[in-house]
Amino acid sequence: MFVTDIDGVWTDKSIYYNNDGDEYRRFNLSDSVGVLFLYLLNIPVIAISEENSEILKRRIKKLRVNEYYLGATNKVAIISELLNKYNLDWDEVAFIGDDINDIKLLEKAGFSATPAQASYYVKKNADLVLLNRGGEGAFREFVEKYLDAMGLLEATVEKYLQINESFV
Amino acid sequence: MFVTDIDGVWTDKSIYYNNDGDEYRRFNLSDSVGVLFLYLLNIPVIAISEENSEILKRRIKKLRVNEYYLGATNKVAIISELLNKYNLDWDEVAFIGDDINDIKLLEKAGFSATPAQASYYVKKNADLVLLNRGGEGAFREFVEKYLDAMGLLEATVEKYLQINESFV
Amino acid sequence: MFVTDIDGVWTDKSIYYNNDGDEYRRFNLSDSVGVLFLYLLNIPVIAISEENSEILKRRIKKLRVNEYYLGATNKVAIISELLNKYNLDWDEVAFIGDDINDIKLLEKAGFSATPAQASYYVKKNADLVLLNRGGEGAFREFVEKYLDAMGLLEATVEKYLQINESFV
Amino acid sequence: MFVTDIDGVWTDKSIYYNNDGDEYRRFNLSDSVGVLFLYLLNIPVIAISEENSEILKRRIKKLRVNEYYLGATNKVAIISELLNKYNLDWDEVAFIGDDINDIKLLEKAGFSATPAQASYYVKKNADLVLLNRGGEGAFREFVEKYLDAMGLLEATVEKYLQINESFV
Repeated sequence: MFVTDIDGVWTDKSIYYNNDGDEYRRFNLSDSVGVLFLYLLNIPVIAISEENSEILKRRIKKLRVNEYYLGATNKVAIISELLNKYNLDWDEVAFIGDDINDIKLLEKAGFSATPAQASYYVKKNADLVLLNRGGEGAFREFVEKYLDAMGLLEATVEKYLQINESFV
Repeated sequence: MFVTDIDGVWTDKSIYYNNDGDEYRRFNLSDSVGVLFLYLLNIPVIAISEENSEILKRRIKKLRVNEYYLGATNKVAIISELLNKYNLDWDEVAFIGDDINDIKLLEKAGFSATPAQASYYVKKNADLVLLNRGGEGAFREFVEKYLDAMGLLEATVEKYLQINESFV
Repeated sequence: MFVTDIDGVWTDKSIYYNNDGDEYRRFNLSDSVGVLFLYLLNIPVIAISEENSEILKRRIKKLRVNEYYLGATNKVAIISELLNKYNLDWDEVAFIGDDINDIKLLEKAGFSATPAQASYYVKKNADLVLLNRGGEGAFREFVEKYLDAMGLLEATVEKYLQINESFV
Repeated sequence: MFVTDIDGVWTDKSIYYNNDGDEYRRFNLSDSVGVLFLYLLNIPVIAISEENSEILKRRIKKLRVNEYYLGATNKVAIISELLNKYNLDWDEVAFIGDDINDIKLLEKAGFSATPAQASYYVKKNADLVLLNRGGEGAFREFVEKYLDAMGLLEATVEKYLQINESFV
């Protein structure tokens, strides 16, 4: 199971305000190929965030993750329940998160990573510190490094290319 | 007391214009954890800026600082008055600012910092030149380095995690 | 013939969402001089993208490329047909693309390049890995390096300057 | 006389498009202090751009330059005329520009600079290649380096601070 935080992972944590109360967030299209790779391998993808907004929902739906939990103040409790449902244990969870409220999940997950911009006390709890910042391909990088560690990356790229070639 | 400039500290000083007169500013969500850390330690946070706009007000309210002063042409005079009110002196002020109109406060504050993008004649008046640019976590970095220098960072992170765990 | 992918080449792959469903993409004005250089040399420019949106169309029309193909799931098939039409072969194609769906074109083109942010399994199929990221001048850089490799850059810059001088 | 190109100097050349035809440009607030420094020294500031749009006009008016020329296809002709009007010669012009249509002005001006992102055939015509990119403080950096070269920077900063202190 692949679990991902949203802000600071899919985004660079930037938020754009105008005078009228409108706001924008910046995402990165390269992350969608990461979700696609996991889909080709039948690995479920779960998005989880303390925040709850329409912007996040729109992006989640575009990326077609399997399940998502917004407004999640206690992330550990939610993922624990989910492990029961999927009949998995923590060793089978890959997790990526970037901030203090992700520390517990970074510790518990079997394989965890954090983007380049995270604070050092977050980084020290992750198995892997990524080269990319959130919103600049950190999620995609984690998926690729995870697949590479499992010896699955080349085969997954090939699978993608074969499917792609079948279109006319 | 923790005093912070806004533009160039919470933002990267960028401003987005369209043809109709609308404008956007870019902030960074990681700074809100910085304000939260200070709140957990009962350290008042004051925001001060020469500018006065709805965008700044919206961001200030989201971050829940204790007091704010917008349209502040003479920042030294305002903070002086505030020190009287809180019965503190300059040695007890931590200040972060990035530009020429912050030089006097950088000199007077007991502990001062400036983001990575500041001009050299601003930097030479700060106790600390941060690694991050404004709008990319400079404020958060300063709070963490300030707490670390006081020996309070680990305890504050622990406190945050305990409160977070109590949610279900 | 000059063939270019759009997202990740003309853009940094970032996408901006608000709560109402509006979205923005970020392009770079320096790329338009790249198209102009090719126009001065009568080299046709083709834009191709798996995506199909009004934003891309607007940018394409501004840059005045010769032809464009949006919603292109099988890029190889489309360019093959185009080579027939222009009576060219793959050796006469310069191609720039940044992601997995560009790998086949990167292999087939006579001269190919990929922006700095591409994944390593994309980079290894390109003749040239650019110094610039998409949306920060990668397309312009490729055109200039292509012209330089052909010994045509200085003459093209001169030609531009002469035309420019003729305006009053 | 201080002459400045706009796109690529005040901006990073990025342009934001949505599906409805709206567009944004990104400027940098630190440049306004650069204009202010020149104002304190009674040095006229001229903005010149091949483009002509409301966005540029809005930014120009905010920065209060002395004169501006938009839609300027032949920049040399316009500045030549301006030198007659101000009774100055090319040696008395400081110019900053970033692209191919600025090459002639970079050569002719007494002191010229180009931002970090410029192409090498633009850079080789400038007296100074700046450390900052356009839209990230390149204009401000040029003004400061120009004043420093003239031995005027410290006095100008002092002058600014004295005026600032007089506000209550």
